[in-house]
Amino acid sequence: MKAAAPQRFATLAEVTYDPLVRAALAEDLGLGGDLTSEATIPAGRTASGAFVARMPGVLAGLEVALRAFRLLDAGAEFTFGAREGERVAPGQVLAKIRCDARAMLGAERTALNLLCHLSGIATETARYVAAAGKTDCRVAETRKTLPGLRALQKYAVRVGGGSNHRFRLDDAVLIKDNHIALAGGIRAALGAARARVGHLVKLEIEVDTLDQLAEVLAFEGGVDCVLLDNFSLDLLREAVRRIAGRATVEASGGITLANVAAIAACGVDVISVGALTHSVTALDIGLDIGPPDRDWSVP
Amino acid sequence: MKAAAPQRFATLAEVTYDPLVRAALAEDLGLGGDLTSEATIPAGRTASGAFVARMPGVLAGLEVALRAFRLLDAGAEFTFGAREGERVAPGQVLAKIRCDARAMLGAERTALNLLCHLSGIATETARYVAAAGKTDCRVAETRKTLPGLRALQKYAVRVGGGSNHRFRLDDAVLIKDNHIALAGGIRAALGAARARVGHLVKLEIEVDTLDQLAEVLAFEGGVDCVLLDNFSLDLLREAVRRIAGRATVEASGGITLANVAAIAACGVDVISVGALTHSVTALDIGLDIGPPDRDWSVP
Amino acid sequence: MKAAAPQRFATLAEVTYDPLVRAALAEDLGLGGDLTSEATIPAGRTASGAFVARMPGVLAGLEVALRAFRLLDAGAEFTFGAREGERVAPGQVLAKIRCDARAMLGAERTALNLLCHLSGIATETARYVAAAGKTDCRVAETRKTLPGLRALQKYAVRVGGGSNHRFRLDDAVLIKDNHIALAGGIRAALGAARARVGHLVKLEIEVDTLDQLAEVLAFEGGVDCVLLDNFSLDLLREAVRRIAGRATVEASGGITLANVAAIAACGVDVISVGALTHSVTALDIGLDIGPPDRDWSVP
Amino acid sequence: MKAAAPQRFATLAEVTYDPLVRAALAEDLGLGGDLTSEATIPAGRTASGAFVARMPGVLAGLEVALRAFRLLDAGAEFTFGAREGERVAPGQVLAKIRCDARAMLGAERTALNLLCHLSGIATETARYVAAAGKTDCRVAETRKTLPGLRALQKYAVRVGGGSNHRFRLDDAVLIKDNHIALAGGIRAALGAARARVGHLVKLEIEVDTLDQLAEVLAFEGGVDCVLLDNFSLDLLREAVRRIAGRATVEASGGITLANVAAIAACGVDVISVGALTHSVTALDIGLDIGPPDRDWSVP
Amino acid sequence: MKAAAPQRFATLAEVTYDPLVRAALAEDLGLGGDLTSEATIPAGRTASGAFVARMPGVLAGLEVALRAFRLLDAGAEFTFGAREGERVAPGQVLAKIRCDARAMLGAERTALNLLCHLSGIATETARYVAAAGKTDCRVAETRKTLPGLRALQKYAVRVGGGSNHRFRLDDAVLIKDNHIALAGGIRAALGAARARVGHLVKLEIEVDTLDQLAEVLAFEGGVDCVLLDNFSLDLLREAVRRIAGRATVEASGGITLANVAAIAACGVDVISVGALTHSVTALDIGLDIGPPDRDWSVP
Amino acid sequence: MKAAAPQRFATLAEVTYDPLVRAALAEDLGLGGDLTSEATIPAGRTASGAFVARMPGVLAGLEVALRAFRLLDAGAEFTFGAREGERVAPGQVLAKIRCDARAMLGAERTALNLLCHLSGIATETARYVAAAGKTDCRVAETRKTLPGLRALQKYAVRVGGGSNHRFRLDDAVLIKDNHIALAGGIRAALGAARARVGHLVKLEIEVDTLDQLAEVLAFEGGVDCVLLDNFSLDLLREAVRRIAGRATVEASGGITLANVAAIAACGVDVISVGALTHSVTALDIGLDIGPPDRDWSVP
Repeated sequence: MKAAAPQRFATLAEVTYDPLVRAALAEDLGLGGDLTSEATIPAGRTASGAFVARMPGVLAGLEVALRAFRLLDAGAEFTFGAREGERVAPGQVLAKIRCDARAMLGAERTALNLLCHLSGIATETARYVAAAGKTDCRVAETRKTLPGLRALQKYAVRVGGGSNHRFRLDDAVLIKDNHIALAGGIRAALGAARARVGHLVKLEIEVDTLDQLAEVLAFEGGVDCVLLDNFSLDLLREAVRRIAGRATVEASGGITLANVAAIAACGVDVISVGALTHSVTALDIGLDIGPPDRDWSVP
Repeated sequence: MKAAAPQRFATLAEVTYDPLVRAALAEDLGLGGDLTSEATIPAGRTASGAFVARMPGVLAGLEVALRAFRLLDAGAEFTFGAREGERVAPGQVLAKIRCDARAMLGAERTALNLLCHLSGIATETARYVAAAGKTDCRVAETRKTLPGLRALQKYAVRVGGGSNHRFRLDDAVLIKDNHIALAGGIRAALGAARARVGHLVKLEIEVDTLDQLAEVLAFEGGVDCVLLDNFSLDLLREAVRRIAGRATVEASGGITLANVAAIAACGVDVISVGALTHSVTALDIGLDIGPPDRDWSVP
Repeated sequence: MKAAAPQRFATLAEVTYDPLVRAALAEDLGLGGDLTSEATIPAGRTASGAFVARMPGVLAGLEVALRAFRLLDAGAEFTFGAREGERVAPGQVLAKIRCDARAMLGAERTALNLLCHLSGIATETARYVAAAGKTDCRVAETRKTLPGLRALQKYAVRVGGGSNHRFRLDDAVLIKDNHIALAGGIRAALGAARARVGHLVKLEIEVDTLDQLAEVLAFEGGVDCVLLDNFSLDLLREAVRRIAGRATVEASGGITLANVAAIAACGVDVISVGALTHSVTALDIGLDIGPPDRDWSVP
Repeated sequence: MKAAAPQRFATLAEVTYDPLVRAALAEDLGLGGDLTSEATIPAGRTASGAFVARMPGVLAGLEVALRAFRLLDAGAEFTFGAREGERVAPGQVLAKIRCDARAMLGAERTALNLLCHLSGIATETARYVAAAGKTDCRVAETRKTLPGLRALQKYAVRVGGGSNHRFRLDDAVLIKDNHIALAGGIRAALGAARARVGHLVKLEIEVDTLDQLAEVLAFEGGVDCVLLDNFSLDLLREAVRRIAGRATVEASGGITLANVAAIAACGVDVISVGALTHSVTALDIGLDIGPPDRDWSVP
Repeated sequence: MKAAAPQRFATLAEVTYDPLVRAALAEDLGLGGDLTSEATIPAGRTASGAFVARMPGVLAGLEVALRAFRLLDAGAEFTFGAREGERVAPGQVLAKIRCDARAMLGAERTALNLLCHLSGIATETARYVAAAGKTDCRVAETRKTLPGLRALQKYAVRVGGGSNHRFRLDDAVLIKDNHIALAGGIRAALGAARARVGHLVKLEIEVDTLDQLAEVLAFEGGVDCVLLDNFSLDLLREAVRRIAGRATVEASGGITLANVAAIAACGVDVISVGALTHSVTALDIGLDIGPPDRDWSVP
Repeated sequence: MKAAAPQRFATLAEVTYDPLVRAALAEDLGLGGDLTSEATIPAGRTASGAFVARMPGVLAGLEVALRAFRLLDAGAEFTFGAREGERVAPGQVLAKIRCDARAMLGAERTALNLLCHLSGIATETARYVAAAGKTDCRVAETRKTLPGLRALQKYAVRVGGGSNHRFRLDDAVLIKDNHIALAGGIRAALGAARARVGHLVKLEIEVDTLDQLAEVLAFEGGVDCVLLDNFSLDLLREAVRRIAGRATVEASGGITLANVAAIAACGVDVISVGALTHSVTALDIGLDIGPPDRDWSVP
């Protein structure tokens, strides 16, 4: 493993995630700072450390996590041992860090909190993608994200091989049952939406029955996507048959690793899974710390 | 269920959590706002809604979640159907909301993301507390929290019957292996810490062996707490015996619902569980929405 | 004109525009406040005022502008004399305000700066929409907006009868010449984009020639929109014919009030006009101020 | 054209304008970033580009605009081809940029939005200054600026050869008709203002008639400036004669390129023009992008 | 003492000082809130309290201080017992507060920190003003303020009867020795400043000798103010004689309560005292707290 | 004095204090910037400067203060002439700075306001520590700090040899008379606090009489600290005797340089002094500025 320039994130600019990392550091350091490290570590000492996977999984968020060290020590140096999206094995060194020892300890928890959470998301996403099998069907997260973390969570889903649902309420229309009720029916809702939104906004509608689907398909303005919520496999297949390529088909509701393959096999284009972001199990990654000259490449 | 004044949170002032709720709304609304609701819901329409539990669990975060509605409609009205920390049953109405229909839909996801996450933490904490049994042993979270959510996550742990570990790096000393190595030994680390910190800061040290524990107990300045990391049950019991009330005893490492009772029975004072906040399963709560005059009390 | 409840904005929630109005007030008041009003106006005096149109135009931004008064005097009272999107005539009273006299003067410029700018955008948009004639062709703004004002500017375009282009770089794909060059051609660029983005993101590509258009139309993945940049009328018609409904057609480049009708008549779906937001002429609106009991309804 | 150290702005420190550029980038990138560039441009590719004037005008805001590239790529390199305040010709290369290709595309619109707006202001200001002729009379903007952009807009006015009016309500007194009415007359207003403000705050008063002017000149405390609002040329000359150097004389109201020379010839010291900042026509400047080794010096 | 509407501050709008009070509360509450009050005070309890002067002094900052209570309890009620700028006596009740008991205790320190600091400034300013005697000479603070508190500190100076120096570096010119040296002399510095700044910006220059003063007075463009730094009484008188009303005269350097009268008697217009804001002795004010029905009017 | 790497602060990370220094600069520069320096100092000129002590004292805040220069000129270079906590003599050069001349003048006041305030606190703290004599008794500040400056003020107390009291309301419990009254007595308050707070939070209680002390000592749960408020020397000694090492003993109320030794001699562990932070006298430090090649080491 040799030193390498930082990988550039697929989407995330440092200008985007930097405020979040700063805020996370401030949340952990408080205004008083790291009492323990300040008291016990002589000033000016250098340390080296290594992020080491403790479980198998898919790596996500390494650059974001490393940012925490650089914010406490502008001279922190990194060597990458794994790439975003790589499947890592227990004991594998993911990155090596060399920086001020107090900065190492002061940033440790912030960095790990980000790294383990995002890698947990990527890992679970990859499980769903693998389970869905060799189809064109995509696995997507939902808006059931944790406050303040949406951009990073969606990034981790992509790293894990998933696809992103809409980012927020202003970039796509998704008409649900309550909208339909308040608008006065499917036709009225679709018409109002078509009239309101610009030509670069997609229009999706959720249906619960084949009757509703029929109403949607009868709408002359067309829809871009149809969301089939909690449909049985039989109904999914029938709905896909009826839609016949006239709209992207999304399935949601009650998706598990056990049933995702069967649902994908129904011919839907996207399967959305709220748990990818609302119920995340962190991937266990640790930070081993040692003297500046330690050779981390041999675990 | 009758209308009631909002319950005041135990610790959280609105001035504290309001910025987080605003930021969460902004993250979801974007600058363009809720396209769907604006297009499909006539302006000025009022709606009523009810948070309804879909799973059994412990409620946490209701007031924080309701704040989202009031930020979009200052005239939003609430009726509480359950109290923070209450065990709720599937189908139970947790709170009723009456507000502008667009505000209802626009705040729905933000509110649920907060409520389901916090209730998930409280629910899991309560499981650990129950599993620990009728001892004085406390269950605490760690600093393995999600960036930006620490205060709320710790609040939810308390609501679930748990106890809080330190809030951040500036309010207590916790000396770990790396600090010891860098300070030049346990005695040096403890001495440095005692000298640095004020009289209202507690001093805890993590030990991995009974030999290290002996060194700690030999330190004339005393320590407030000892953290026994990954000790076997036998070693835990022996350590508790040797500490003999001279310090609070915390156990951590590999704690599960299966072994928490046995560990508590060893006589430790606190058991800390990282998963309470780093690997949260959301509690399933939904928002049912209907016409302004709907009677939600009969599910 | 009788008192009325505030109109709710189509899209904008107060939680969204409030920070901008606060920042604008702070920019004008400085930390020292309105020296002139404080010196010359006795404390506690009440004043009434009226926004009066000095030119004909289309009103936009009234609620945002009025927010400035309420931020300086929480008890400010408003009566609306015109609605968002209404064509107003010189001398027409748009809204009446009754509040603390110092607050009236202190908020005046901030309110007018917002109101005149947004109404200027709505007015010019309405001119383009009218010029485009009775077709289904929409007039849209571009991302050539002023820093910090995009959401409000886009709102004003809608109020003026226009349609919104994408909000920012993350909610739709628009492949331009430089992307094509860097990707290695149209086909490569389209393929990469289809693979990257989620199912709710639209895909648009800009072409400069009919040959490029042919390449786009040959792409098996399809595109949602084609942007015809600086096409002559003949080429526009030919391009529309070839696209034949397989994609939304947008025309841009050199659009003026003089040629917009001819371009619309070519059958394009959207015409985008950068000048709507990058070169705005403010609509002249004034704030007349008088004693609390003045009857503003008779100008 | 050879590489040169960045010109330092006359007044603006990077610490001042950096937050605005960050916010503008965030407004355009959203949390999801530049989908198009990420999908179509391979990571790690370098590009070169050149700001090229498409119209003749006065350059303003180059350093602010370039900041956008550096915020996305800390290693971005710039070569200046023109100086702030320089009259530029169509086709002239204003600056060359070499940076990461995704950063080039991601920052392009933000940079141009700033540059074209500020250069538009400088250009129009220069027109007024030239039209005013070879007098000592200054051309100044007003507080009719766009929210959030006041400091930059005022900077551009100076770059265009204009002079700045007060920055905000707390740095100078300007008594207008409503203040006079509420204070109980000119004499009362002037007395109150003199008593309130510190010795480094100038005192200006607006008058509409020669009678009001007489009252002002009779005030024993003196005034620093008199604003003659909507005076005819004859009245302007008479007012200047009566003031006789006892105060700075400002003319405002209905100023156009057609009448500014005549007004300046009346002997006033300052002419203030709201349209300089409230109704800006952007200067057309483009960003040409090409391979890293392209020689931009030959257009 | 009867209930009264809040006095409106002379200059400060709530929109200006509210962020500072929020930040001060957040600094004291942390994210965890007031542990002590939450533990010991039953939820929902109401308390009453009174700000009571413990020393004689001049009151300043009452409304700002009270804001802290309202931010924790929107229903907090206040009754004023003294006015801003009033000389208060030990034992005097300055204001009564009735609010939630936890809010009372949680806001207490934040409120007192503001109130005691600002009243300390007003009190010391009033001492200087009194010591200066019955002249027209004003006492002003300088820019030697505490970071973040400048607006409030300057407000307190005014409340104490003082006058404000410039607010910051952008609202007036003050040429000092280093500027003169770098500009190449007094004449060059004055010429450059006149050319640069707008017509509403005053121009002051600091001189150390009568020779320098002569150079200043010879400058044909004139200056608005001359700052005589560390002049002896004799030199002050001579300088005032030579200036002869052609500029405002400010004296600074080594001003004390003992010599301020003598300096004022020299005929200077303004005496500036850095210690008013850089070395503040807090006025001792306490918050007495009791049951909701306590009658605070009888101490 | 030779160039040296910046001393690292004991506790403060740049990421913590940087926002405060930025805000302080913005407060002083305004949006218009330093008019005087811009007008009088040619662009691109370099200057050198030296912080020079004008009074004897204890240095604190040098790195924070120097940050102001680097924020205006990223290339600013520093040489340290004294260390944090060093006793400095009048005329001593504390640090040398070499940077852009406009940046030097523009940052001067911000830097000095921080440096003089913090050094003033360290100096006064050192006086109290010296006066307390060679005991183990610590001198601590209180929460009577200035809004926004708490972290820096507490840092300065440590630099001066003092010890920190709690940082805010969420990191330690301190039960005072009002808490006792509202809780229903000492025993109830202590019991409630023990039950509420985590194992890393210390518990202190304030007592006014020996009777109250007896109640505290009878509480089976124990307390960590007892605060003896306004006790006479005799009572202090008696209280220390009765506490007998079972709790840390803090004395407060009416502490002066004259009585601190006598109080320390009573055997208390901590003496807290509000004036250390609420009534600070700035240490007089100046910034001498000269040409880039000036040799500052010989004053």
